[in-house]
Amino acid sequence: MNTDIETYLVTQTDLSGGRSTVDVVRAAIAGGVDAVQLREKHASARERYELGRELREMTADADVLFLVNDRVDIAAAADADGVHLGDDDLPVSVARDQLGSDAVVGRSVSTVEDARVAEDAGADYLGVGSVFSTTSKDVRDEESGIGVETVAEIAAAVDLPVVGIGGITPSNAADVVAAGADGVAVISAITGSDDPEEATRRLGTAVRNGRAS
Amino acid sequence: MNTDIETYLVTQTDLSGGRSTVDVVRAAIAGGVDAVQLREKHASARERYELGRELREMTADADVLFLVNDRVDIAAAADADGVHLGDDDLPVSVARDQLGSDAVVGRSVSTVEDARVAEDAGADYLGVGSVFSTTSKDVRDEESGIGVETVAEIAAAVDLPVVGIGGITPSNAADVVAAGADGVAVISAITGSDDPEEATRRLGTAVRNGRAS
Ligand code: NI
Repeated sequence: MNTDIETYLVTQTDLSGGRSTVDVVRAAIAGGVDAVQLREKHASARERYELGRELREMTADADVLFLVNDRVDIAAAADADGVHLGDDDLPVSVARDQLGSDAVVGRSVSTVEDARVAEDAGADYLGVGSVFSTTSKDVRDEESGIGVETVAEIAAAVDLPVVGIGGITPSNAADVVAAGADGVAVISAITGSDDPEEATRRLGTAVRNGRAS
Repeated sequence: MNTDIETYLVTQTDLSGGRSTVDVVRAAIAGGVDAVQLREKHASARERYELGRELREMTADADVLFLVNDRVDIAAAADADGVHLGDDDLPVSVARDQLGSDAVVGRSVSTVEDARVAEDAGADYLGVGSVFSTTSKDVRDEESGIGVETVAEIAAAVDLPVVGIGGITPSNAADVVAAGADGVAVISAITGSDDPEEATRRLGTAVRNGRAS
């Protein structure tokens, strides 16, 4: 499974301007997104399972990585590539046990110490943030951003791919990647855009500019 | 796995009068409870996983059935006997696939039609309710009770064990069982009792009185 992720969409229907998550994901795929995470914090397990099966089909056709937030059981049932876990979720080791060695297990971290713990626990990539303070409740609305300096420290401390998340837009994505992130994850920058396909494309361009800088 | 359940405790720390769920479960086990379901709707997955491992140890020592509400992954990780699923949760078939043929998969239903569907899908027992309207938000606070008549219809329509739930107390449990339920599930009648052990014992006595009537 390719975890070289430039652009990573985290879905949230109620931040999608009245569009369905299926429509947003279709546009993001057209714009070249590398990974999609089914989040949908306000949906029931049944809804996430049914949506997950649909997104799995779309992402498989496009060879896009598909992950499920939090729920290892829904990830397995929807035949996702893996899960993304935070501090409040099941441990990385449990997800690994249940999904197997080929699954992609991501972990949210915001400190160097937690990044090292996640790497030791067997995570395949890190979601690092919130990079910037965010008013769109993308990740952790109670936190101010950790800043690109902390992204740089974490990226230097681990061998895992690092994806910045939180308050990232096409305008600041290059800075996050120049600091050391391999790619960027967003909700609103894609879901809330007038043109999610174009927003995805602009994010990808910004990431590649950041990598080249 | 023995699914002849007379008394069944559904846990909810914030309805436990300041006591811990571990303390309430310990008392319920002393009072002869047959099954414990980890619910804890307001706890994180991590918290439920850690509490689940503790409850698994306690229930295993006492030979009490231990189930997890909703989350198949937490059930597997905590080595529970199975899961209890509602309309908003993963399908019974998915839980069966992930947990195997020996696992106990329960399903909440409130109509004869849904009871038959759950039986056909391979559920091992049914939680039927809300039997009585409940002000303690035990199950579905938006619903008035289905009444013992519907419990009787459901119990007659399926071959599965039927456990009544919703607004059940030691005072009305015998009526629910006399109508056709095999046992009763409660939250507040145990968690909110001044003496959870004695409340469990009185529920068990009421169930046996109902069976004998
Ligand atoms: Ni790419």
